[in-house]
Amino acid sequence: MYDIIVVGGGPAGLTAALYSLRAGKSVLLIERENFGGQMTFSPKIENYPGFLSISGSELAQKMVEQVAAQGASLTMEEVMRIENSRADNIKVVVTDCGAYECRAVILAVGVKHRLLNVPGENRFLGDGISFCAICDGAFYEGLDVAVIGGGNSALQEAVLLAQTSRKVTIVQNLDFLTGEKKLVEILEKAPNVEILYGYTVNEILGGERLEGLEIKKTATGEVKTLKVDGIFTAIGLAPVNDFFTNVAELDQYGYIVADESGTVTASGVFAAGDCRTKKVRQVSAACSDGAGCAIRACEYIDRL
Amino acid sequence: MYDIIVVGGGPAGLTAALYSLRAGKSVLLIERENFGGQMTFSPKIENYPGFLSISGSELAQKMVEQVAAQGASLTMEEVMRIENSRADNIKVVVTDCGAYECRAVILAVGVKHRLLNVPGENRFLGDGISFCAICDGAFYEGLDVAVIGGGNSALQEAVLLAQTSRKVTIVQNLDFLTGEKKLVEILEKAPNVEILYGYTVNEILGGERLEGLEIKKTATGEVKTLKVDGIFTAIGLAPVNDFFTNVAELDQYGYIVADESGTVTASGVFAAGDCRTKKVRQVSAACSDGAGCAIRACEYIDRL
Repeated sequence: MYDIIVVGGGPAGLTAALYSLRAGKSVLLIERENFGGQMTFSPKIENYPGFLSISGSELAQKMVEQVAAQGASLTMEEVMRIENSRADNIKVVVTDCGAYECRAVILAVGVKHRLLNVPGENRFLGDGISFCAICDGAFYEGLDVAVIGGGNSALQEAVLLAQTSRKVTIVQNLDFLTGEKKLVEILEKAPNVEILYGYTVNEILGGERLEGLEIKKTATGEVKTLKVDGIFTAIGLAPVNDFFTNVAELDQYGYIVADESGTVTASGVFAAGDCRTKKVRQVSAACSDGAGCAIRACEYIDRL
Repeated sequence: MYDIIVVGGGPAGLTAALYSLRAGKSVLLIERENFGGQMTFSPKIENYPGFLSISGSELAQKMVEQVAAQGASLTMEEVMRIENSRADNIKVVVTDCGAYECRAVILAVGVKHRLLNVPGENRFLGDGISFCAICDGAFYEGLDVAVIGGGNSALQEAVLLAQTSRKVTIVQNLDFLTGEKKLVEILEKAPNVEILYGYTVNEILGGERLEGLEIKKTATGEVKTLKVDGIFTAIGLAPVNDFFTNVAELDQYGYIVADESGTVTASGVFAAGDCRTKKVRQVSAACSDGAGCAIRACEYIDRL
């Protein structure tokens, strides 16, 4: 029996655990696959206050150590659902490995990378198609790669890849890039970066290995083939809240409906970070959410 | 002429400047007296994600360096008012030293903790006297502390401290507590909490370290000494938003009315951090606000 179970080990979940532990609560933090969450895919974070420049995995590591130092129980399991116990005010968190009781649950499950949903994608996912230049960029040293997308994540991937790959082609569906101006300026100056505007991906091509992709100019219907050795997809994120519809209301996009208080419909359940309805999905925003949810969850428990 | 002027150099203002600069905007950051804001009063911060333990002034220094590295203009002046220019969509920020034009203003002026104004207080501020149990309570684990005040903040501090400290003595000037009944009930049941009604603080005592406080029963004049290792003062926060009533609506307590979007009534004016209406006043929450406000201010400017 724990006071608080935090579901999700990204910055929101880690901060929620940190604040709960420091308030004297017992905490179990359950993460599915990757402590640190999305930020571990960022090769370089320069906008998290306090660090001039740090890799996402290094920042994640620091946060995990900080939580561990407070005596958190961390476990890597997949949460299947949250149930109400027959006992009053007790929640049961059911995972692929078992079930845990607690008084309050903080959902901080983050988001997942969106897929292109085109032929050939499934076949080369993780073996030719990557979401993480810092993880996989080195495999394409001196080779040609494509980055799909035009937001901050895509541009960050492209900046990193341009330093090691022979050529980086950015395939953006819009007629402009939506990421930070500073990143755009860097890429426009890079001699080995080409930006293709107004193209969507038709298909991923290859035999034994990934060999390229077919793209289509939306305005004209013109189709062409890019020969590349690797593809980095960065077309956004999708929520993964389907398991929690019995304890939380989801909006039309699948995000948990909650304001900055983190409070959701079911009592004793709170939502923090990227998984909730919000406009700004940043590491600092996730941390803020985690802190706020923990404070509220502790108040809730103290009043039971 | 700047794109964005940020008023206030605490974590909210610094993060707002950081995000604005990275979005390619020109930024002037104006701080009155102390870059870093309230956090510089914390000798040790262990709940800001990413740092196992860091002094508030060291964390402030890191944030200032990070903003400076992005090319911010920083100045130490006191902002007297915000005016609308005769030109469309131009704001004028008037300080004690001059006036600056910009397209958007981010107000991040923070709050001030009310002080006891008794002998010994200045000496132990930030080193024995704290304003934040969430931040500093863990430093008094197993030790004796006093909480000064009887409102919600004081009671919340006491509830938290009672879980880790040996004894918590609440010193309240009135004959009753003014905070929520549920909190009062929790505290009345707690075996290690004592509530002293009708006492005011005469003096903070100590040599090298804080050792206690002298209190006086208002009704009888009786004076006694409490031996404690730490004092948590919670006699209220005071917003400092009076200069901004022409551009922002203030609530009954003087906070700028704004939700997590930071948007206030006047177009082109945004509010971030402790100075706005919110429940959780933490460094991470201020950073989150700063990031969000900057993103919104940049969108606002880009659409002008």
